[in-house]
Amino acid sequence: MKQHTSLPRGTRDFGPEVMMRRNFILDNIREVFTRYGFLPLETPAMENLSVLEGKYGEEGDRLLFKILNSGDFLRKSSIEDRKESSSLVSKITDKGLRYDLTVPFARFVASNRHNLALPFKRYQIQPVWRADRPQKGRYREFYQCDADVVGTKSLICETEIVLMINEVLQKLGVTDFSIKVNHRKILEGVCEFMGTPGQLSDLSVGIDKLDKIGWEGVKKELGGKGFSEDSIEKLATILKDGQSREKINSILTGTSASDGFEEFNSMKEMLSSFELENDHVQFDISLARGLAYYTGMIFEVIIADSGVGSVSGGGRYDDLTGVFGVEEIPGVGFSFGIDRLYDAMEHLDLFPVDDIKATEVLIVHFDDECFRYGLGSLKLLREAGIASEIYPDSTKLRKQLGYADKKGIRQVIIIGSEEMKTGNLTLKSMETGEEKSMGVNEIIRTLTTRNG
Amino acid sequence: MKQHTSLPRGTRDFGPEVMMRRNFILDNIREVFTRYGFLPLETPAMENLSVLEGKYGEEGDRLLFKILNSGDFLRKSSIEDRKESSSLVSKITDKGLRYDLTVPFARFVASNRHNLALPFKRYQIQPVWRADRPQKGRYREFYQCDADVVGTKSLICETEIVLMINEVLQKLGVTDFSIKVNHRKILEGVCEFMGTPGQLSDLSVGIDKLDKIGWEGVKKELGGKGFSEDSIEKLATILKDGQSREKINSILTGTSASDGFEEFNSMKEMLSSFELENDHVQFDISLARGLAYYTGMIFEVIIADSGVGSVSGGGRYDDLTGVFGVEEIPGVGFSFGIDRLYDAMEHLDLFPVDDIKATEVLIVHFDDECFRYGLGSLKLLREAGIASEIYPDSTKLRKQLGYADKKGIRQVIIIGSEEMKTGNLTLKSMETGEEKSMGVNEIIRTLTTRNG
Repeated sequence: MKQHTSLPRGTRDFGPEVMMRRNFILDNIREVFTRYGFLPLETPAMENLSVLEGKYGEEGDRLLFKILNSGDFLRKSSIEDRKESSSLVSKITDKGLRYDLTVPFARFVASNRHNLALPFKRYQIQPVWRADRPQKGRYREFYQCDADVVGTKSLICETEIVLMINEVLQKLGVTDFSIKVNHRKILEGVCEFMGTPGQLSDLSVGIDKLDKIGWEGVKKELGGKGFSEDSIEKLATILKDGQSREKINSILTGTSASDGFEEFNSMKEMLSSFELENDHVQFDISLARGLAYYTGMIFEVIIADSGVGSVSGGGRYDDLTGVFGVEEIPGVGFSFGIDRLYDAMEHLDLFPVDDIKATEVLIVHFDDECFRYGLGSLKLLREAGIASEIYPDSTKLRKQLGYADKKGIRQVIIIGSEEMKTGNLTLKSMETGEEKSMGVNEIIRTLTTRNG
Repeated sequence: MKQHTSLPRGTRDFGPEVMMRRNFILDNIREVFTRYGFLPLETPAMENLSVLEGKYGEEGDRLLFKILNSGDFLRKSSIEDRKESSSLVSKITDKGLRYDLTVPFARFVASNRHNLALPFKRYQIQPVWRADRPQKGRYREFYQCDADVVGTKSLICETEIVLMINEVLQKLGVTDFSIKVNHRKILEGVCEFMGTPGQLSDLSVGIDKLDKIGWEGVKKELGGKGFSEDSIEKLATILKDGQSREKINSILTGTSASDGFEEFNSMKEMLSSFELENDHVQFDISLARGLAYYTGMIFEVIIADSGVGSVSGGGRYDDLTGVFGVEEIPGVGFSFGIDRLYDAMEHLDLFPVDDIKATEVLIVHFDDECFRYGLGSLKLLREAGIASEIYPDSTKLRKQLGYADKKGIRQVIIIGSEEMKTGNLTLKSMETGEEKSMGVNEIIRTLTTRNG
């Protein structure tokens, strides 16, 4: 009887090779977060729907995965309720799967605010679920990787985000990237300058697309939203190609933008204390992100020639927990898009062969006696911290070597009767085919020196 | 407006302190798994119900969390279907949350069998969900931590499970524990000896409770299941207190038990090649586990005086993937119960203070100028790999020290005008209150030596 073994649409298995590469990325990110004083947090996959609903807009609510109540789930519903999905749903579900890491974090901060040492710096790396239409690069289950500081307005937080992005990407071997920065107040200033204050969200949606649809496209879109020709003309003087930050600052003199530029400059000055050769920060007036939430500096990271969109983004918000009835906890956060980082690194061929922690050595053997002899060597190899295996069955050497090959094990130790007699084992490189005869202690020295 | 921030019943947040301790356990387990040649695998939280259902018995099916189909979920159901939960459920859900890691692993192996290098050694550390009634120590979301080898019958796999359990517990500082071992074939032999072959599963359920209800209780239970007095009498000669393995072996001569004892002895002999001072293996005729699944050696690990039940268990099975239509993939696996291990370590006070990776140093400062001066030191500390922070705001020193205290940061560097003038910073121990004046490079040497 053949049963089907397919996965739900939009979900993936991560086999060993992919997992090791993902772990390479995540281990580096965790190391940097930890060194910057961020501590780990995990929240449950399920949250009460009352916590999730109304936090992500109508579209978001629609994309929540809901958990059917246990047992006789219809017991709380009337025949009337059962006529429509929309009337039945709240009677048969009260939990949903995490949609992002921000709302659970806000819930955590709100309910633990009396026990937390503020400022609270946490990172969180967990999957989230969205009932989105799956397509290339968009999944229904994917990891988010967030770091936030709440309880302070200090610009050192923004500065450290820039530093952390630099450190992480450097550790991953990414060199050509830019950290685009803008400020909510600067965009407000643009609105004031255009004579359309209060239209910030329409404006943002428009200029955010400048990269994709060009200036003519943006003009058309803004026109359609009721922006006057005059106001669009004014916008043009700001978005003009190659316009410097200083120039834009002077055009927007007297608007809210000044506060934004001041913060930007303070951050750049703080950054200078860290003496980076290149901080990769690039002011970008067309960066808008989801402004509803952000109130200060906003970020987005682009890797050149990576074939993917932004791999990281974030910004400052004034009020993380207001929606849970706890006011005035400001903060700033950012996240790495692990799937995109993975794709970018693959595209740029940046995964180091040697840093992937797979098995280093396989012991192969000619018969049971050789196998038994090999156990002693296996013990010594592992005691020396070398990831090693012995082929478990007595079988043809070719089959054993095939296993090493398939699993990407780069060294094998061959044990035959000659080796047992002399104690000199054969170390064979699977890459070059080269064979060397040496004692197990010498093999251990060779392998640990190579790794060191 | 105060909104509720409660968690679904049976689920937990893991705050930083708990997370660091959990990570201490998991990092050690991962290190050992990797050194033994196991590679990581992750599968999606959701599986198709056709994959999950019928794999865990009736009780298990009832405890599956089911995901409501997206959108107009009632569209595939008739008015008739909607009368009963039992008739509606299959019309409105087709996905469920992972209930364990074994079935997803079996599905993975079945669907990737042509690409896998057999034997395939994988470990998997992910949460699972069960709609069980929550109670002390039982959660609706909890982590499992499995390692399996499939594609070989070699007893080196069982041997390595014993070795890995020894290594992991040693790394965690657990010294007083036993690895109880029994064999399905030995229990079959007991059944034959009792004159009740084929009654293995009733017998197992009974003797598995010997610890809890004592011999009189077991007798009563077996009697209730139709075992004759004569057969129970025979069982008594085997379960007798202090009965040695050799004695039991000789009583069961001529039954299937011989094969089981032979494997047990082979494993012990292989183990001897690894020269453990104490392998902690203890033959236990009353160990039964969930026999429906296992076909060979079975394991369970008990930590003495830990206040919890078994912290690890596993065994050999003949046919992992048969249920998915792929026959003859034998294997052996085991898992650590992370929640129980955590509780046991807490109970025994085994978490090392120094191995928890929190922030090591906080830089505190008297004013903005000192803050700015501190950034340079912060840079050097982090470059030296020391997890460090600067207090982000200019505020009273007492508040800054309070933050260090609350976050468990054990060292602070104090920067005032005197420190800026001389370049000698004040390093203060939060534990002893001791203060020392030294340059930043000397501080770095002090801290890195202490860690090394």
